[in-house]
Amino acid sequence: MKNLLSMEQVSIQQIEEILTRAAELEAGAKPQLAQNAMVANLFFEPSTRTKVSFEIAERKLGATVIPFESGFSSTLKGETLYDTVKTLESMGIDAVVIRHNQDAYYEDLLPGINIPIINGGDGTGQHPSQSLLDLYTIFKEFGRFKGLNITIVGDISHSRVAKSNMISLKRLGANVQLVCPEQWQGEFPEANNEWGDLHKTSDVIMLLRVQNERNVTYEGYSTENYHQQYGLTVERESMMKNNAIIMHPAPFNRGVEIDSDLVECERSRIFEAVNNGVYIRMAILETILKERKYNDSVTSKFAVSR
Amino acid sequence: MKNLLSMEQVSIQQIEEILTRAAELEAGAKPQLAQNAMVANLFFEPSTRTKVSFEIAERKLGATVIPFESGFSSTLKGETLYDTVKTLESMGIDAVVIRHNQDAYYEDLLPGINIPIINGGDGTGQHPSQSLLDLYTIFKEFGRFKGLNITIVGDISHSRVAKSNMISLKRLGANVQLVCPEQWQGEFPEANNEWGDLHKTSDVIMLLRVQNERNVTYEGYSTENYHQQYGLTVERESMMKNNAIIMHPAPFNRGVEIDSDLVECERSRIFEAVNNGVYIRMAILETILKERKYNDSVTSKFAVSR
Amino acid sequence: MKNLLSMEQVSIQQIEEILTRAAELEAGAKPQLAQNAMVANLFFEPSTRTKVSFEIAERKLGATVIPFESGFSSTLKGETLYDTVKTLESMGIDAVVIRHNQDAYYEDLLPGINIPIINGGDGTGQHPSQSLLDLYTIFKEFGRFKGLNITIVGDISHSRVAKSNMISLKRLGANVQLVCPEQWQGEFPEANNEWGDLHKTSDVIMLLRVQNERNVTYEGYSTENYHQQYGLTVERESMMKNNAIIMHPAPFNRGVEIDSDLVECERSRIFEAVNNGVYIRMAILETILKERKYNDSVTSKFAVSR
Repeated sequence: MKNLLSMEQVSIQQIEEILTRAAELEAGAKPQLAQNAMVANLFFEPSTRTKVSFEIAERKLGATVIPFESGFSSTLKGETLYDTVKTLESMGIDAVVIRHNQDAYYEDLLPGINIPIINGGDGTGQHPSQSLLDLYTIFKEFGRFKGLNITIVGDISHSRVAKSNMISLKRLGANVQLVCPEQWQGEFPEANNEWGDLHKTSDVIMLLRVQNERNVTYEGYSTENYHQQYGLTVERESMMKNNAIIMHPAPFNRGVEIDSDLVECERSRIFEAVNNGVYIRMAILETILKERKYNDSVTSKFAVSR
Repeated sequence: MKNLLSMEQVSIQQIEEILTRAAELEAGAKPQLAQNAMVANLFFEPSTRTKVSFEIAERKLGATVIPFESGFSSTLKGETLYDTVKTLESMGIDAVVIRHNQDAYYEDLLPGINIPIINGGDGTGQHPSQSLLDLYTIFKEFGRFKGLNITIVGDISHSRVAKSNMISLKRLGANVQLVCPEQWQGEFPEANNEWGDLHKTSDVIMLLRVQNERNVTYEGYSTENYHQQYGLTVERESMMKNNAIIMHPAPFNRGVEIDSDLVECERSRIFEAVNNGVYIRMAILETILKERKYNDSVTSKFAVSR
Repeated sequence: MKNLLSMEQVSIQQIEEILTRAAELEAGAKPQLAQNAMVANLFFEPSTRTKVSFEIAERKLGATVIPFESGFSSTLKGETLYDTVKTLESMGIDAVVIRHNQDAYYEDLLPGINIPIINGGDGTGQHPSQSLLDLYTIFKEFGRFKGLNITIVGDISHSRVAKSNMISLKRLGANVQLVCPEQWQGEFPEANNEWGDLHKTSDVIMLLRVQNERNVTYEGYSTENYHQQYGLTVERESMMKNNAIIMHPAPFNRGVEIDSDLVECERSRIFEAVNNGVYIRMAILETILKERKYNDSVTSKFAVSR
């Protein structure tokens, strides 16, 4: 695996390898990392979870993390993302994790960038490391994906997590259902516009965040309405199957997607998933950095010209 | 000591232990820290001194410091402080240092957060690590607190340092006097509204910052007036007792609370206190992290459900 | 070398020593650094290249880097730069790298600051570490400076890089020519206001960035005009001497100072220079930190007064 860009590009076998390796690392396996690897995290959108999770994973692997403040960088002087990443590559950075508000921003980078790129979220595109940690969380719970009933509820159209997860879970044999307001079904006309009995029949209910800060709500939207129609209320939770679990990529809006009392309930795997994310990201980084082919062109060009 | 939240909760014995340990660390004692401890500093208000001081203390202890940019985190997406801290706990962070503009913000955290919380300043509440470093600075100077005349001058009502120090110093047997404009005496009607002879009789004059950036000045306030009425002028300094010292938690406004020429005068312990702060914070963190009980609930819950 | 402030203050011998040491470090020499050195990078202006380059250099040397967020520090509370640096010195920081928008900001620091100051760029003053890396890049290419024809093109008046480089290159025996619009010649009336044949006769063409973000363009300026009149077009490049090279301190404006297709052409040393910068900054820091005289006044003052 050279880069991690979108879930379509990760094979079933690669998924299995990453989940297995995450489990080994969680059980205490010693990381296998190229000595003195240097990593930079380029986050051009706000993030706590993903950025801090990568920061921790990198340090646990023994990598050196080079701080990069997107709000204080030469992008303010109009530098392109390509030139910024090429600069970091030239300085000896071994891999970059990037979150950017442009869909598939990485297409501009692939032609000339030699170091691995790990997609930490692209616009309304994908969020593959989140998808892998969700898979890991589900697998730890059920030991399989085949035949599981998984319901994804909420703003499908703007959610990169939803897209990454739908792709992965279907390929792994799960039955994936969507529930969302019509205005948020985006490119998925098969989505259900109400819960029906899905809260009763699902093994996993995966809630998505209402992205208030992106101002993407629809006419007639209110937090109260949304909570009653699409939220996981205490009443709906009480009808869930035995052993069924609740997931949410977080940050969550208490009282909107989920009743505040359910956030840390027995069924909730919200914070467990956060914990899993560290091991998944360690596995991703280790896998990618182990395979990195060091390109000495910069140095050798000098040697020739001297 | 599980947390460090406010000085009322720190016993005399605990104060003595922290001061003693700071002195040992300053003399070169090797830190005793749980291996690979990870700490995050959550500063939701500007700070140079306190944040950098903790950052240095943590690194000198051998801890791993995980960067957290409050201005770039999911709090922008409306996440509660509790959920942010619970997320960091779930990722394996062993302790958090928090500065927040809400008084007693930690009350919301205590019910569900298991990792230690070190208060780096809460609103107009307290600033216990600053208080402990002030105590350390005084103790290094005089070898005692009992009977010392200590005068705190300035904006008592908005100063968390003043509150923390008054509590501590009185309990330790010092005679504490306050000097401030009537508008800034807050909950302390016993405060003097002029110096009187206090500049002549004090062993320690502790100046407080005029918090211009909070726009808390009173009618008729001007920097010149304030300097003449309440500032430590060169004239007042010339009448101070032999061996009396000047303190200020900083940042200071030169020419307002203190004449610019006095900042680094013989009596000033302003920058020495900054130096002391590193050792005090090392002692605080070491004490708290040594006693941290590791809670494996997250991991064990998984084990059960698999 | 106690500080690195401006190129006038660096002797020819010191330049040679730094270049030689950079080459050794690039070839894999083990850094010689005082144990546990702590460095802080104070960047009060946006930067990717210089800040990240120092961050990497410091870590490769084995120093501990203490984060300092200028946009979130006590300078917001009106603290002077002197007081901020004195605070960091008091906390045990061993050296500071500073970028600041005030010309010769360091003059205010020299009287009372004991730790070394490395100038990462002062206003429209100088940028000595950039100059040293440019010298290193040229020397690696040609093995000498004497007799080289070097043309600096662009906004001379606002460029600290141009000033630092002119001083250094002339002292080292190169023939330096300037090309720029009349409005940007600043204090250099000898500058040429058109290319003439300089693109044909130069060994090194060093382009400067148009600082759009500082709003310093002149009447009649447009990116297209500038590119045709002063930019390095593909046509001009095609007439360059064999073995002549292109440099640019970056970030560059593609299609303005340089045709986008030339950024990574055979002649370009733009990204190689970025790579060189890491070794030059390692050499600078190592040289300065090795000579640092540790000042124990803070500690000893306490010892006296106890």
